[in-house]
Amino acid sequence: MMIEIERKFLVKSSDFKTGSYQQTRIIQGFLNTDPERTVRVRINGKHAFITIKGISSKNGLSRFEWEKEIPVVEAEVLLDLCEPGKIEKVRYLVKNDNHTFEVDEFFGKNLGLIIAEIELNKEDEIFVKPSWLGEEVTGDVRYYNSQLSKDPYINWKKDLE
Amino acid sequence: MMIEIERKFLVKSSDFKTGSYQQTRIIQGFLNTDPERTVRVRINGKHAFITIKGISSKNGLSRFEWEKEIPVVEAEVLLDLCEPGKIEKVRYLVKNDNHTFEVDEFFGKNLGLIIAEIELNKEDEIFVKPSWLGEEVTGDVRYYNSQLSKDPYINWKKDLE
Repeated sequence: MMIEIERKFLVKSSDFKTGSYQQTRIIQGFLNTDPERTVRVRINGKHAFITIKGISSKNGLSRFEWEKEIPVVEAEVLLDLCEPGKIEKVRYLVKNDNHTFEVDEFFGKNLGLIIAEIELNKEDEIFVKPSWLGEEVTGDVRYYNSQLSKDPYINWKKDLE
Repeated sequence: MMIEIERKFLVKSSDFKTGSYQQTRIIQGFLNTDPERTVRVRINGKHAFITIKGISSKNGLSRFEWEKEIPVVEAEVLLDLCEPGKIEKVRYLVKNDNHTFEVDEFFGKNLGLIIAEIELNKEDEIFVKPSWLGEEVTGDVRYYNSQLSKDPYINWKKDLE
């Protein structure tokens, strides 16, 4: 149970992969996609979690998060109960200077979307931007995984061009 | 993680209280009230739980249920995240012949409503009906706690008269 502070960026090249020290396949669904009370079921390699998130702070940087590890077999059953629109992605961990980026490469209806997140200890914490880091999308609800499950990237990527 | 088989009845007198061997105050809220994927946070005396339920079987008797105990302090924070409309009730355990009834006396906007539930091992299991047991409401979505939180008894009890 904590407040999570993170910033989120689009990724403009796959150069991040060379610096990645861990890759995990993630499949996740949502028992509620309401940004005020998101309930997520995630299978992350050999582990599974149920995660509840509240609404973001006004600047989009901080968000209440509660998480419990649960058995993978239970997560599989709960995934069947989730709203339509599972998210499939590979998460790359990429060390950059003193920070670690979590870079998510999406598949399925979100193919083509790559998002990097960095977790910070305070909102104004300084960090080094790697060359592959693109536009910041912190607080942009379209890029919430809960929203991508309902309204995937394939539906609106043309509007960005 | 289980399939719960239960039957639900209205209660027509407070005679059940004399046979009750345990009473617990319950406060609960919902992170999702959708009957297909209900997510409930409950504080039950000194214990707290997060419970996820699926849709009922066609006859309303069986329902998938997954439950985890969580610390009460975490449940208190999660209750704040829930949809408006907390449920407050006292649960009485009442032994009757070979079965135990859970009788919920509601407060707040559901004042006046008393519901008895009996959990069965199989759908056609026979049980003795106590004198205070009223009309069966198994499968009637209005009496789901998730629905009572959104559309409480005070709103529609006049329609029953």
